[in-house]
Amino acid sequence: MGYISFGERPQSLGRRKGADAAMTQAHITPSVSYSFSMRVRDLHRFGMLARIMAAIAEAEGDPGAIDLVRVTPKHKIRDITVNARNDEHARQIVEAVDKLRGVNVLQVSDRVFEMHQGGKIRIRNTVPVNTRDALSMAYTPGVARVCMAIAEEPHRDRELTIKKNAVAVVSDGSAVLGLGNIGPAAAMPVMEGKAMLFKEFADIDAYPICLDTTDPQEIILATRWIAPGFGAINLEDISAPRCFQIEEELKRELQIPVFHDDQHGTAVVVLAGLINALKITKQKLGALKIVIIGAGAAGVAVTKFLKVAGARQIICCDRQGILCRDRLPNLNFSKQWIVNNTNPQDVKGSIAHALVKAHVLIGVSGPGLVSSGMLRKMAKNPIVFAMANPVPEIMPEDAQKTARIIATGRSDYPNQINNVLGFPGIFRGALDSGATDINEPMKIAAAKAIAACITKKELSEDYIIPSVLNTEVVPRVARAVAAAAVRSGAAPRQL
Amino acid sequence: MGYISFGERPQSLGRRKGADAAMTQAHITPSVSYSFSMRVRDLHRFGMLARIMAAIAEAEGDPGAIDLVRVTPKHKIRDITVNARNDEHARQIVEAVDKLRGVNVLQVSDRVFEMHQGGKIRIRNTVPVNTRDALSMAYTPGVARVCMAIAEEPHRDRELTIKKNAVAVVSDGSAVLGLGNIGPAAAMPVMEGKAMLFKEFADIDAYPICLDTTDPQEIILATRWIAPGFGAINLEDISAPRCFQIEEELKRELQIPVFHDDQHGTAVVVLAGLINALKITKQKLGALKIVIIGAGAAGVAVTKFLKVAGARQIICCDRQGILCRDRLPNLNFSKQWIVNNTNPQDVKGSIAHALVKAHVLIGVSGPGLVSSGMLRKMAKNPIVFAMANPVPEIMPEDAQKTARIIATGRSDYPNQINNVLGFPGIFRGALDSGATDINEPMKIAAAKAIAACITKKELSEDYIIPSVLNTEVVPRVARAVAAAAVRSGAAPRQL
Repeated sequence: MGYISFGERPQSLGRRKGADAAMTQAHITPSVSYSFSMRVRDLHRFGMLARIMAAIAEAEGDPGAIDLVRVTPKHKIRDITVNARNDEHARQIVEAVDKLRGVNVLQVSDRVFEMHQGGKIRIRNTVPVNTRDALSMAYTPGVARVCMAIAEEPHRDRELTIKKNAVAVVSDGSAVLGLGNIGPAAAMPVMEGKAMLFKEFADIDAYPICLDTTDPQEIILATRWIAPGFGAINLEDISAPRCFQIEEELKRELQIPVFHDDQHGTAVVVLAGLINALKITKQKLGALKIVIIGAGAAGVAVTKFLKVAGARQIICCDRQGILCRDRLPNLNFSKQWIVNNTNPQDVKGSIAHALVKAHVLIGVSGPGLVSSGMLRKMAKNPIVFAMANPVPEIMPEDAQKTARIIATGRSDYPNQINNVLGFPGIFRGALDSGATDINEPMKIAAAKAIAACITKKELSEDYIIPSVLNTEVVPRVARAVAAAAVRSGAAPRQL
Repeated sequence: MGYISFGERPQSLGRRKGADAAMTQAHITPSVSYSFSMRVRDLHRFGMLARIMAAIAEAEGDPGAIDLVRVTPKHKIRDITVNARNDEHARQIVEAVDKLRGVNVLQVSDRVFEMHQGGKIRIRNTVPVNTRDALSMAYTPGVARVCMAIAEEPHRDRELTIKKNAVAVVSDGSAVLGLGNIGPAAAMPVMEGKAMLFKEFADIDAYPICLDTTDPQEIILATRWIAPGFGAINLEDISAPRCFQIEEELKRELQIPVFHDDQHGTAVVVLAGLINALKITKQKLGALKIVIIGAGAAGVAVTKFLKVAGARQIICCDRQGILCRDRLPNLNFSKQWIVNNTNPQDVKGSIAHALVKAHVLIGVSGPGLVSSGMLRKMAKNPIVFAMANPVPEIMPEDAQKTARIIATGRSDYPNQINNVLGFPGIFRGALDSGATDINEPMKIAAAKAIAACITKKELSEDYIIPSVLNTEVVPRVARAVAAAAVRSGAAPRQL
């Protein structure tokens, strides 16, 4: 998720500004990602809890569960869960409660850090090995027969080991969320989280492999060398433009699927949303002017994939404005590719200029790059996917007067474009079908399957993309991807 | 477990030969590693089950559980579990039962292959991520705070990720059991099995990494690159002499423990057994003549470690005989090391010659290399650890007339020298103490802790080493290793 930005950590609290204001922390509502639990002791007096809750509300905290822990002759002790905007805000809320007469905050614990304590995944054995017989069958000497079976018939590793359900989540920590190059150790919590999502949503056994190198050739070598035990490789949070070369070479060299989720996962879910959006606006992809803001891993992948899907008029922008021929000498090879494969009229200029008469805006860049004034210059029925996270290119409140359809990367607005809708089903389908690649037809099939999870009747401006908690999505995507794998020749007809 | 030999797979059945006979498959008793389950349908007639069991016994099968599956008006259907000697023997047993009048074998399933189906380990999430709140805390956006905490204070990766409990089981598949260089894919069942043992015995989360290279420098690079997410590295089934260089360089380069279990795990458990054996014979290690047969990973490691423990007179042999100065030009560097550091009188000759007046024989080589005649030339109270697997250098039946104490690698004789007694506790202690290395004092502490699991009262010729199922072993070893880590400076005094 390379384009999620957590760069600015707000130090002060502000009230929401009006439309068109620069994006600030004021847009950040209290969130579970700054959730803490405080143990509060208060005197047995009427109305104490009400006063505590009032203090939390006054400090703009968002209270959740209240659990009575213990009642003593003089006191009540409770655990109160509160969402805050950030660490500083959390401290202010605790202080506000602690200041109340007759109330003490005994202990504060950060719920997010608590959840990550000791890591979030574990290994589990399919059978206990606590008897001599089990040891003899799972390990020596019995295991030798299984090894020999694979040595004699190599394809049997998919049957007799974890391989056919195992995915390596490989990162070098160079583009972790929007945090930048924080290195392999600091990337681990994200890669573990990714492994959790694989397990939760698709029952895939993924293991995080964080590499102590950012050299593309070394990343390629490391991934090739560790590949034998894995059924697929998920590249994650590797910065552009290195990620393009790394993925391309690995796809060529390995006989298992290699998939950079920041690129293709995002592209698939964007296309899914767009397919449904165009059903509402009754437009055809090939006839539309599409502006993509952001030319990192996601931006490049969305551009390529929309072209595969039939888009003909795409203009890409980075922070400097439209990617055009004049800028070629100063661009890396992936941005050069964009110039050579988009913007047929070679339009030059700012993001604002690009958006004039555009039908679709897809933002995979940073907070607040787009104003509502810009949206007003777009063609009729603007479709706006503003996916920078947590603060989008334009806030839905500011876009809603102009845009017909708005999607973001956030869970607290309608139409969340979330990779979790894509990669679990895509890998499930690829693994189940025995595919050696995840190719364009498989990704197109995934996008269509996600879109098809919403019926004609359900479809509306506020509901173009299914919820990440919709349990139908993964199996439908998996089936569609597996079928496309066979049709396209990436997987054998019969397993 | 590099010295476990499964090279010969017997094609015919024989009866046990007398003492001193060449070791053959006749020594292989029916075993759970060739265990199958057959579904048998027989007519409702008195005595049918007895006839089936008689047929199994006649065919020399070793029957286990009998489960009644279903009773129909005419038939009984049962599942019968049987241990055989090998695949061919299993077929003979099935045939013998199927030939009985009124009896049909409906289905046969191989219990070992069944257990390995789809792999033996899985990933498990510590918390479900099936709500928006859980997603926001385990993954984006909440996880960003955890990443930043590690980026700012790198040592917190041990607290906030799986690292402090995670071990990579790294192999290149070049010396898998006694099967030789069968490659990384065919090695996976063993590495998964090892991961299972880590989980079962020490609650360590180990993941198998089978490398698609046998080049020592590439193995070193691959292991270094994947290291950030792991708290320790367990090298496994990498052939000698490459394993020595690989381990040495990795130990120097990485700040986490690196441990080649085929070497040091074996050496630790051998020393544990020897400590207890010498309590019985009332001898001192430094005063004994010790002959080691086998100069692969285990043989070299045992030699080095016994020297550390105080042994002064060691003679090593390979299949060509005693390792001595004359042979130096034709030896690899690890065998050269042996010549330069053992055999002070530079004795030359055969294994038989080496054993004359020896007090201890340690075999980590191949089946049947030692005869009872050779044992008779040893000093008084011979101690014989014949650990080739599954067929030892000399069978206990053939050694027992001469040897005072006999140990093997097998579970069906007393005194099983099994690495499972060592590595789980050693890694547990290293990880718990935050050690950056597993050094000699820690390994000595482990050997003493294993030995100390048997009390003076319990100690006897047939019980010098605790059972692999003794649940006291791992915690005792872990405590001893952690304490030794702190004492020796491999771990900080306070975590």
